Amino acid sequence: MRETGRWTQLWLAYKPRQDMGNGLYLAHIFWDGFDRQDPVIENAQAELAKGLAGMLGTVPKEVDELPSDGLIVRRIAEHQHPEENNVRYEIKCETTGMPDGTSATKEAQEAEVGPEGYRLVQEGKTLTLTAADEKGVLYGVFHILRQIALEQPLKGLHITCRPDNPLRMLNHWDNMDGSIERGYSGRSFFFENGEILVDERTRDYARFAASVGINGVVLNNVNVKDRATWLITDRYFDKVSEIARIFAGYGIRLFLSLNYAAPMELGGPDSADPLDEAVISWWKEKFAEVFARIPNLGGFLVKADSEGRPGPFTYGRTQADGANMLADLVKPYGGIIIWRCFVYNCTQDWRDRKTDRARAGYDNFIGMDGDYHDNVILQIKNGPMDFQIREAVSPLLGGLTRTNQMLEVQAAQEYTGQQIDLCYLIPLFKEVLDFKTYCKPELNTVADVVSGRTFGNQLCGMAAVSNTGNDANWTGNDLAAANFYGFGRLAFSTSLTAQEIASEWVGMTYSNDETVKQTIVRLLMGSRETYEKYTSPLGIGWMVTPNTHYGPSVDGYEYSRWGTYHRADHLGLGVDRTDTGTGYVRQYHEPNASRYNSVETCPEELLLFFHHLPYTYRLKSGKTLIQHIYDSHFEGVEETEEMIRVWESLKGKIPEDSYALVRERFERQLYNAREWRDQVNSYFYRKSGIPDEKGRAIF
Amino acid sequence: MRETGRWTQLWLAYKPRQDMGNGLYLAHIFWDGFDRQDPVIENAQAELAKGLAGMLGTVPKEVDELPSDGLIVRRIAEHQHPEENNVRYEIKCETTGMPDGTSATKEAQEAEVGPEGYRLVQEGKTLTLTAADEKGVLYGVFHILRQIALEQPLKGLHITCRPDNPLRMLNHWDNMDGSIERGYSGRSFFFENGEILVDERTRDYARFAASVGINGVVLNNVNVKDRATWLITDRYFDKVSEIARIFAGYGIRLFLSLNYAAPMELGGPDSADPLDEAVISWWKEKFAEVFARIPNLGGFLVKADSEGRPGPFTYGRTQADGANMLADLVKPYGGIIIWRCFVYNCTQDWRDRKTDRARAGYDNFIGMDGDYHDNVILQIKNGPMDFQIREAVSPLLGGLTRTNQMLEVQAAQEYTGQQIDLCYLIPLFKEVLDFKTYCKPELNTVADVVSGRTFGNQLCGMAAVSNTGNDANWTGNDLAAANFYGFGRLAFSTSLTAQEIASEWVGMTYSNDETVKQTIVRLLMGSRETYEKYTSPLGIGWMVTPNTHYGPSVDGYEYSRWGTYHRADHLGLGVDRTDTGTGYVRQYHEPNASRYNSVETCPEELLLFFHHLPYTYRLKSGKTLIQHIYDSHFEGVEETEEMIRVWESLKGKIPEDSYALVRERFERQLYNAREWRDQVNSYFYRKSGIPDEKGRAIF
Repeated sequence: MRETGRWTQLWLAYKPRQDMGNGLYLAHIFWDGFDRQDPVIENAQAELAKGLAGMLGTVPKEVDELPSDGLIVRRIAEHQHPEENNVRYEIKCETTGMPDGTSATKEAQEAEVGPEGYRLVQEGKTLTLTAADEKGVLYGVFHILRQIALEQPLKGLHITCRPDNPLRMLNHWDNMDGSIERGYSGRSFFFENGEILVDERTRDYARFAASVGINGVVLNNVNVKDRATWLITDRYFDKVSEIARIFAGYGIRLFLSLNYAAPMELGGPDSADPLDEAVISWWKEKFAEVFARIPNLGGFLVKADSEGRPGPFTYGRTQADGANMLADLVKPYGGIIIWRCFVYNCTQDWRDRKTDRARAGYDNFIGMDGDYHDNVILQIKNGPMDFQIREAVSPLLGGLTRTNQMLEVQAAQEYTGQQIDLCYLIPLFKEVLDFKTYCKPELNTVADVVSGRTFGNQLCGMAAVSNTGNDANWTGNDLAAANFYGFGRLAFSTSLTAQEIASEWVGMTYSNDETVKQTIVRLLMGSRETYEKYTSPLGIGWMVTPNTHYGPSVDGYEYSRWGTYHRADHLGLGVDRTDTGTGYVRQYHEPNASRYNSVETCPEELLLFFHHLPYTYRLKSGKTLIQHIYDSHFEGVEETEEMIRVWESLKGKIPEDSYALVRERFERQLYNAREWRDQVNSYFYRKSGIPDEKGRAIF
Repeated sequence: MRETGRWTQLWLAYKPRQDMGNGLYLAHIFWDGFDRQDPVIENAQAELAKGLAGMLGTVPKEVDELPSDGLIVRRIAEHQHPEENNVRYEIKCETTGMPDGTSATKEAQEAEVGPEGYRLVQEGKTLTLTAADEKGVLYGVFHILRQIALEQPLKGLHITCRPDNPLRMLNHWDNMDGSIERGYSGRSFFFENGEILVDERTRDYARFAASVGINGVVLNNVNVKDRATWLITDRYFDKVSEIARIFAGYGIRLFLSLNYAAPMELGGPDSADPLDEAVISWWKEKFAEVFARIPNLGGFLVKADSEGRPGPFTYGRTQADGANMLADLVKPYGGIIIWRCFVYNCTQDWRDRKTDRARAGYDNFIGMDGDYHDNVILQIKNGPMDFQIREAVSPLLGGLTRTNQMLEVQAAQEYTGQQIDLCYLIPLFKEVLDFKTYCKPELNTVADVVSGRTFGNQLCGMAAVSNTGNDANWTGNDLAAANFYGFGRLAFSTSLTAQEIASEWVGMTYSNDETVKQTIVRLLMGSRETYEKYTSPLGIGWMVTPNTHYGPSVDGYEYSRWGTYHRADHLGLGVDRTDTGTGYVRQYHEPNASRYNSVETCPEELLLFFHHLPYTYRLKSGKTLIQHIYDSHFEGVEETEEMIRVWESLKGKIPEDSYALVRERFERQLYNAREWRDQVNSYFYRKSGIPDEKGRAIF
């Protein structure tokens, strides 16, 4: 099995590529204004050398004066960057005018580059990479390498790229025993047996992350228990700071998840009350120690008062009390507190139809909007429930208007096939980013809100729960690496399409052969809808095996304490979240609230998320609801069978080990899809008594 | 919490009791014919001394010649015991005639005592305990102590007691890491961290077991994995033999569960094929080593080809091939092989309505009836499924006519409330024992079959999966100790009623106060029916949370691979096991087969076990099936509430710690009962659409 061998290099394998005239611009390199001993610059140089050697078989020659041909890497002064927030994010990764500079003065163009940004301009036989900081250089180098890998000419390049989101983070749910909560790619490569691992794999991980623009990583699980509580003690400082240093060399700040009850567990006061002076001074001393020992530490991610984790509610305090106390104490060190909004009643009574878990995030956090200090970020899951294959967008996003906010998505396929089933998630992430919140007349999409464009926040962005592990291919299923790659690319440039990202990833990972590229892109692009078809219908979610979250169990969460119900009876199903139901729709700005409230205007893919409807309800297609359930489930399996045939057409065109591994996963996906189809269809047939119009097998 | 304190003495607490004139018969003891250094006799003496000191505050005086008053313990020669099998078990624990001996000659009476039996005769101021062996003495002593504890006069005693079942065993599902599979009373007191524990608790356990007549104990889980495979190696011999020695002192033979694949895992041949010479000689050497190192070892319990365990089927051999191979090799050491019949397809397709797990035991074993060697016993679970609160009796019991068979019941409340919910299981065990198999015109009950009365077997009896653990009270719920006590008593004397056993247990454990006794007996006696009412209706079973087996999940096993379905749809429910269904009914002898086959004659408590019926089917009560479901579930909760009220009437009348512990368990039981009621009722209401006639709350 490849899973146990030497790990792969993913999209940075640097296989030989056609030159496309690109070698010309990379024969010489001239450094202008950057300290070549800076760790980031050193890594950028090393990556460039490695990439060119692998892909073009060339070694660039370092020169001491401006070359007539080759690459010029030039610093522009940081103060040339305009400070106005809303300007800051206007120029994204796009061609910024003609090489003759007619569209803007040279100065103005340089000013636009900004922190972490870069410009690439080909003129004559030179390519100039301009950046205001080292990260910009690193990202520019990865851009050049990507162009080469994709066999696209550098000739004609005239582009300015700046990240859309200030923070582009990966959250690892790795535990210190080496397990990963919701991990589907083997065990942790950060932890094993209570110890921290630092090796070449740590560096490779940082390279991959940096290559797609990730600039922050949370190392440990948000559920901080046992030994992970001790990560902020002398026991682990050496190793944590070693990782922080490696990450810093790739422009990545290290963050840790914090146990809110740490004072009590680490021998401090027997309280975690955020207003208790003893607690505050314990944290103050603790942070002084931590930031002294871990330079570059970005701050902390906190899951409090959620699913059994301790928090300020325990002491009758608000979430803001808790977050602000920590934030004030880490501020002197440039630290930030990222506070998760996944707070809900997880001991709900299923009999109760008034309490609605979907309401909880908004209800718990909206009242304190504006109370959070400026180095606090609220991290909000994309939907109000929990990473289902289809759910509404969280009304907190754009509901909060005076609070730093970050979008959390899940690259790990917890509910979306667990890296057995193919589910390319970038279309889902895009949908969320494109969602119009109507918090303002314009600049009101989720992408606008979390990038800071809407309200001018400096601290904001996107985070993904990572889908990596120590499998040789990093992501269990080779194709799941597209979600790792894609999240980073999308967080950096939210205007990229899911298809563009898929195409890049295939080209870099497999081949630029058009058949290969089109075939795999087609598989990726259709995969989310296929998965949706054979699982839970029309946004209802949760018909999944409890605990493991893989495979069907229609009633698995129906009579549980988790607030996750479909309310199916012999007449119909769905959760009434309208004005006549739980009233959840009113958490949205208009016109969203009214659109969701009415069954006529509610988007059909979310129909059962918002409405309880009879099986005989007619969809716009003319089909009844029950017939839609049957049809979509049969289609989901048929499409999976078709995906396998499509994959089989690649045999011989891609490396055999990858072909075989993915083929085997598809086999398991097909088994899973059939179970879903038959259990969901049988469940609803047995409940409704309404037969399939086409008389297909239902049990 | 009492669970963590010093362990209790259960029914052997020897609290002060009224003398009732009993002290007279115990002032002196005269031993006649027994070696007082024999370990069993030593333990009998010690127990008697301890019991008398505690209960009557007296110390019996040992005398060297026949006393005019006191206890005479006398051996009768073993050869005086008649060898005819069917005679052997005719005389049970009952008054055997007048003291003047008019009903039988003295010689004939003595002959009746037999192995493990005893006679107690009061004459004048003496009480004579006659036995043919040391175990008989031990059991006789416990009989005397029981009479005293129950404050019943020894005067007038004229009784001969012989065990009904040759083997009366407890099976422990204890793992070597200290966990217990399906254990609800804390961790193992035999194992911890891969090591064997031997301490005072081991001895107390043996005392309790011996006091109710247990004569065999299987130490480790039938699922033998990891270190437990090594129990038959030098690594563990010392400790195992130490336990075997302690047990032997209480008349208990130690057995071990065997890993059928042990040769492969312990460095022997890479096969477990029972016909492979290399495998046979490996086992031969192994048993020579094992029996040399563990004297008194009774033999082995084997779970093969079941739920993922290896077995002879792996090699295309029969179950008889596997069992006989091992049996032949242990025979020279007096060993036996107990072979479990829990063999079924655990990867069934839920869509398949022809395959029936209930059929599996019979189908897998009946064909080899007569092929098993005479030191093999087939151990058969009471029902064909798996220890549900109500299921049919296994047709293998009495289906096999030429094979040693042992009945397996489960004292551990896996599916019956997990020692949170009160469920006194002796009535269930009694039902099974009293079931007429019709394998012969008479002597055809399960009790007859497994005792050897029916077919004359020497090796047979009853086994219970133990409900004990290292909780201070041994059984989690104080009241669950009645199942430990009751199983032993019932296995020894199958003619005792469940009520008699309950009454004994309450008297010995709590008090002979009539109010206390009647109150607790009433609770015990009603508990199984109450549990049945609020869980799955009419014998259908399995509507339980998968894996944990506690709490409701109506569809939890409906779409699973375990062969455990209720087949509910919008019209009805139940499994058709009749001639028109899976044909399972034909595994029974007539008239059982026809009785179950017809919906008119099928006992109603098993209606849905055998028949698929519409919700509108009328029961004999006149109620529809659906109304019966609603009514019984409401009643189950009401009865639980009533049980709590009854228990509360005991406050101040029994020790407070026991009162409080049980009160807390009842609280959890009530929560559980309500969940069952509401989930089951809501499930069937949502499926059938038929409302409760009484309009009660259904969700």
